[in-house]
Amino acid sequence: MNWTLAKRAEKMNPSVIREILKVTEKPGIISFAGGLPSPKTFPIREFAAACDKVLRDDGQAALQYAASEGYGPLREMVAANLPWKVDPAQVLITTGSQQGLDLVAKILIDTGSRILVETPTYLGALQAFTPMEPEVVSVASDDDGVDVGDLTAKVGTGAGKARFLYVLPNFQNPTGRTMNEARRAALSAAAATAGLPLLEDNPYGDLWFDTPPPQPLTARNPDGGVYLGSFSKVLAPGLRLGFMVAPKALYPKLLQAKQAADLHSPSFNQRMAAEVMKGGFLDRHVPMIRALYKSQRDAMLQALAHEFPSGNPDTTLTWNTPAGGMFLWARLPKGMSAVDLLPLAVDQGVAFVPGTPFYASHGDPRTLRLSFVTSSVDEIHRGVASLAKAIQSYAATLPGLALAA
Amino acid sequence: MNWTLAKRAEKMNPSVIREILKVTEKPGIISFAGGLPSPKTFPIREFAAACDKVLRDDGQAALQYAASEGYGPLREMVAANLPWKVDPAQVLITTGSQQGLDLVAKILIDTGSRILVETPTYLGALQAFTPMEPEVVSVASDDDGVDVGDLTAKVGTGAGKARFLYVLPNFQNPTGRTMNEARRAALSAAAATAGLPLLEDNPYGDLWFDTPPPQPLTARNPDGGVYLGSFSKVLAPGLRLGFMVAPKALYPKLLQAKQAADLHSPSFNQRMAAEVMKGGFLDRHVPMIRALYKSQRDAMLQALAHEFPSGNPDTTLTWNTPAGGMFLWARLPKGMSAVDLLPLAVDQGVAFVPGTPFYASHGDPRTLRLSFVTSSVDEIHRGVASLAKAIQSYAATLPGLALAA
Repeated sequence: MNWTLAKRAEKMNPSVIREILKVTEKPGIISFAGGLPSPKTFPIREFAAACDKVLRDDGQAALQYAASEGYGPLREMVAANLPWKVDPAQVLITTGSQQGLDLVAKILIDTGSRILVETPTYLGALQAFTPMEPEVVSVASDDDGVDVGDLTAKVGTGAGKARFLYVLPNFQNPTGRTMNEARRAALSAAAATAGLPLLEDNPYGDLWFDTPPPQPLTARNPDGGVYLGSFSKVLAPGLRLGFMVAPKALYPKLLQAKQAADLHSPSFNQRMAAEVMKGGFLDRHVPMIRALYKSQRDAMLQALAHEFPSGNPDTTLTWNTPAGGMFLWARLPKGMSAVDLLPLAVDQGVAFVPGTPFYASHGDPRTLRLSFVTSSVDEIHRGVASLAKAIQSYAATLPGLALAA
Repeated sequence: MNWTLAKRAEKMNPSVIREILKVTEKPGIISFAGGLPSPKTFPIREFAAACDKVLRDDGQAALQYAASEGYGPLREMVAANLPWKVDPAQVLITTGSQQGLDLVAKILIDTGSRILVETPTYLGALQAFTPMEPEVVSVASDDDGVDVGDLTAKVGTGAGKARFLYVLPNFQNPTGRTMNEARRAALSAAAATAGLPLLEDNPYGDLWFDTPPPQPLTARNPDGGVYLGSFSKVLAPGLRLGFMVAPKALYPKLLQAKQAADLHSPSFNQRMAAEVMKGGFLDRHVPMIRALYKSQRDAMLQALAHEFPSGNPDTTLTWNTPAGGMFLWARLPKGMSAVDLLPLAVDQGVAFVPGTPFYASHGDPRTLRLSFVTSSVDEIHRGVASLAKAIQSYAATLPGLALAA
């Protein structure tokens, strides 16, 4: 049969992470690879009660076709919970925040359009943008996020001007880093001056450990950005519910793209989420998630400090200290590749995700992402010990590399 | 703020039908407009039991991230229920069958690619295809579906060859018509000869009234087509669950497009659907839907025959007799426009959808779609009487038009 694929289909690739997850999902493997929230945090009892109530009180509407914008009371809750003044009419409920990336890509990216991303950036965003065939340009980034000077240099002009900067300021996936207040203020001012729209993704912002992160970028200039949020990390990913907040200039086109993509997100799930969240449930529930994830981050920091001597980053593993979220970012000694380490680690019974897929270009092969939320404290200690063994056995194969002892 | 929209966004338009529905959803209006399944058919009790069971036995997995392909047992049920041999590995669970249209558009349509559709065709498909900027070509169609001669003439060659024919053979939306066996055989042979892929959409196939429709086109040449199905009409639309069956040559790319679009369809909903369908539930449930919809179709046929004299189609309303599904297709007397009739009908308390939005080009302004599944038998009789009054008052404004009495 003569199937002719669209050019964009040739650019699509299987998710490297999903392929890795398949390999590493062998029984007995301690996985720091996936971005899976701890299932201990899922409010199963509350969902069961919400199912009963929704089906009893409102079953016919919950199971019927519905408005593409989303369920009114849920849109109102979203707007009310955001830390700036948002009209519920600007909220669009999406099938996970991943869908928000797909919709934005459809309405803002032409073939060859320049778009800017952090270094590194969320892989799922790259996958959502790629089918629309943009030119993806990496903006230099450090531990505090985007380098504003480099951003300004890369905005471009005329037809080559960037359509937007995609930015994940809180506990970023993959690095766990957070953009500090000074950087946000500078970025917001630079974007406004350049007339550069921001696509701000905030799936992890509620998962802070000691202090809440600074005000979102969109709050500083609501007409200049699209904001994406998710219920996956504070309720459960299996409902596939997220949301976007879009300025009036863009909302109608995003809504049309949403209609064409899946008509609307599940009416039943939207009602369940609204029912569970009624009466301030998240105010009681999210602190439990924060405490759990903080204890797991602390365990990973302790285990890493125990296994790897601090010192010269050329000869030992180094890592950062995320202030929230789910991930920690580490870097191998000079001359090592996380891709080559992975099979040795799996042999030792531990898995992670190599860092390179998260770079739009010129990935640092020494980097890797470690998730601390899926494994227990005991598993974290054992997994990090296994990682250390794998790195030692890898080093033994590299002539000229002497690990710090 | 300097938002620059993608060229494809300029081609997107609000769903005419969704806009019409907003106008006609005033209280008291009898609506033949929407394509809403009767909520009486939703198995609310069974869903409540399934929720309890899924959350009790498998809650953590039901609420977690999951494979993009879909929930294994549901994929197996889909494959086992199809009337040809399907490997569950070829089944991809989608967020409603609308998403299947979006995914196919992404991987098969380049800017300017020729795609073929019926005359008229499903509006939601046109909306899903449009963002990928195809050249949409209407193939002549009659009461039995696509005209195979015209199809062959329009396939095209070389780079201008059509990427696929989109076809909805059973109880089509909007016309309610069904492609008969002879036409299917001829179409299937012509498509195979021309190497023309088929995109077969079958959301209504189970809703037959007297005899099941002929074998699907995809069953005749499984490598030559993508088949789309839905749980919306046999279970409930509010779960947003559909599926596609794709040949091995296309499945990996569709899966990658699915990952990028929303990661996966809701794990919870997939388990609920599988739980409800266990043990042959649809074999008991679907006959009830068929009987209900048949009685409502009969009521509409009776009411139409009562209100409108049969005779010259230039001077009276004419309509078809669908053998299943949800819609009936009607045509106004010569000189009338369904778009102009609509406000008069709403004044009389009844709504419908004008036919023109369902044509890729050169819509017949006299056509209209009447849904018989959302209203009760009594409402159908009253609604058709109101429609007749609206047509009479419309005729009175058209000099030279004498309706048949």
